Amino acid sequence: MLNVDALERNLRRMADDCRAAGVALRPHTKTHKSPWVARRQLRLGAAGVCAAKVGEAEVLVQAGIEDVLITTDLVPATMERALDLAGLARVTVVLDSVAMARELGARAGRRGVELDVLLDLHVGQQRTGVDPGPAAVAVATAIAEAPGLRLAGLQAYEGHCQLVPDPEEQRRRAFASYELMAAGRREIEAAGLRLPWVTTAGTGTYRLAIEHGMATEVQPGSYVVMDTQYARVRPARFENALFVLSSVVSTNREGRAVVDAGWKALSSDGGAPAVRDRPEATYEFAGDEHGRVQGLGAVGAGERVWLVPSHCDTTINLHDGYVLVGDDGRVVGTLPVAARGRSA
Amino acid sequence: MLNVDALERNLRRMADDCRAAGVALRPHTKTHKSPWVARRQLRLGAAGVCAAKVGEAEVLVQAGIEDVLITTDLVPATMERALDLAGLARVTVVLDSVAMARELGARAGRRGVELDVLLDLHVGQQRTGVDPGPAAVAVATAIAEAPGLRLAGLQAYEGHCQLVPDPEEQRRRAFASYELMAAGRREIEAAGLRLPWVTTAGTGTYRLAIEHGMATEVQPGSYVVMDTQYARVRPARFENALFVLSSVVSTNREGRAVVDAGWKALSSDGGAPAVRDRPEATYEFAGDEHGRVQGLGAVGAGERVWLVPSHCDTTINLHDGYVLVGDDGRVVGTLPVAARGRSA
Repeated sequence: MLNVDALERNLRRMADDCRAAGVALRPHTKTHKSPWVARRQLRLGAAGVCAAKVGEAEVLVQAGIEDVLITTDLVPATMERALDLAGLARVTVVLDSVAMARELGARAGRRGVELDVLLDLHVGQQRTGVDPGPAAVAVATAIAEAPGLRLAGLQAYEGHCQLVPDPEEQRRRAFASYELMAAGRREIEAAGLRLPWVTTAGTGTYRLAIEHGMATEVQPGSYVVMDTQYARVRPARFENALFVLSSVVSTNREGRAVVDAGWKALSSDGGAPAVRDRPEATYEFAGDEHGRVQGLGAVGAGERVWLVPSHCDTTINLHDGYVLVGDDGRVVGTLPVAARGRSA
Repeated sequence: MLNVDALERNLRRMADDCRAAGVALRPHTKTHKSPWVARRQLRLGAAGVCAAKVGEAEVLVQAGIEDVLITTDLVPATMERALDLAGLARVTVVLDSVAMARELGARAGRRGVELDVLLDLHVGQQRTGVDPGPAAVAVATAIAEAPGLRLAGLQAYEGHCQLVPDPEEQRRRAFASYELMAAGRREIEAAGLRLPWVTTAGTGTYRLAIEHGMATEVQPGSYVVMDTQYARVRPARFENALFVLSSVVSTNREGRAVVDAGWKALSSDGGAPAVRDRPEATYEFAGDEHGRVQGLGAVGAGERVWLVPSHCDTTINLHDGYVLVGDDGRVVGTLPVAARGRSA
């Protein structure tokens, strides 16, 4: 269930925040996986959108989205598909190694395609990205020198800072990442290269990135619908818009309801879901297709329980579609999760 | 990736074990979610198949599978769909409350449909099922008396015993469940009702259920492809047939590879996946679309890493299809995960 009124308010708030700060907004579509939502984000002023994988970008571009940044580094198995897309839309990619820069450059050159490339810089997440310093300068140089590739800037995502609960600790860690980003940029520009585009940040940190001032663009995703993990982190500027509607299938124990939503309907990587409007109720996973809910009081089999996902991205990825409702709970339509499962 | 040679050996071994024991085999399709695999199980002698939800049963029946037991208790929102299916195939359902027995009976009676129903008996899993004793007798009586419903037997699933690591402890707990099942059956039969069909057990316990001798039927699912959780539990009679093929996307740290498979390609409810043929390598989730693998030695970006899921059911449910390979690794075809996401 997706509350489209709450969605619309979230989209506007983020667009307003970025416009007021003079920072470009490039929302990450890995959360909602819907070209329809992406199009609304663009109409509200987004500079473009992000896709996590080439498979997600294919769905977006084929639906008519015209400016997509693929935020995971390409490998040979995905390069030709990315180059195919570059014939249909403005597609930007990220790279973190000299070898892959040479490989992509050779392939782009052979096909006569010109592609914007961001250097993927590591600023503390322990995931992808080359470290600032000579290694980063070498990769930037390889991108700039490769036929068919244009070095357009830096991606330096501080994903490890998104869910830090303490605001001061979060600020300290995020700023440490932005300083690494700034240092990396200085070293590369000292080598005679230009990096006009600097992209980072998610829902948990976009305000910190704006405050720091180094990034030209932020790429938040989860703000569109939120979840219980993000609700615990500032900014609490966005509303929960996403629910999984479950049914009580058994009331065989006093004080406990068994519902028909388990690991296959709700992701568990962020912990258990919450029950909407019932903070005293607790949900516990009970297998692929079941959960146990305590603290609902008297309920009967067949009653509906609205669950609030702990992690929106991975829960949405379990479903083929959304049922769209308004603030008043009335169903206003349905929408496919068009890029569901596009992990390659 | 699904190794169809290993799959075929697993299907045959389970069929042989059940045939030798004189116990009916009704494999659970919630693992593989494929009517093609279900059909092979039936050709090898299975009495029918199980589906977890009405949505899964719809996919199976519409694909031509003729005998399906839906193992989750029906609620009003799913009853009409189940009755629709009963016009197309032999559909059996489970119930654990007097109220739902009356509700389903009234609906079946109005439509002139006759339906086999199993009493869902609770034997220790703390999920669905009515407790043995007067409550179970009352539900069984309500089923037997409802127009359109035929009381056909008991479902008493000991799901809490499937992954108990110590074999003696597992045997003790499973037998305690079978004794509850036997006691519940005696009490109901003492009330003048007959329960010829008794179904229970999964991949972790089917041998124990056979040894106990009370069940007429077992319903294992995971044996078809196995996973790292089940590989740790006896019987180790089945081969791993399922892999997620990932690519190294970054080698920015000595001794560590970042691969392009995270929570959206591999379920985490059963822990981290293993690396095929590399017991010394360890995988750690690094977000929606990434994982960190230590201990691979020297690898380059673009190299393939075969991962072994920790929990097959929930990992298969993340994917739209299988790539089928033989023992020799050659691709022999593709197969949709037809019932993916059918959680209602």
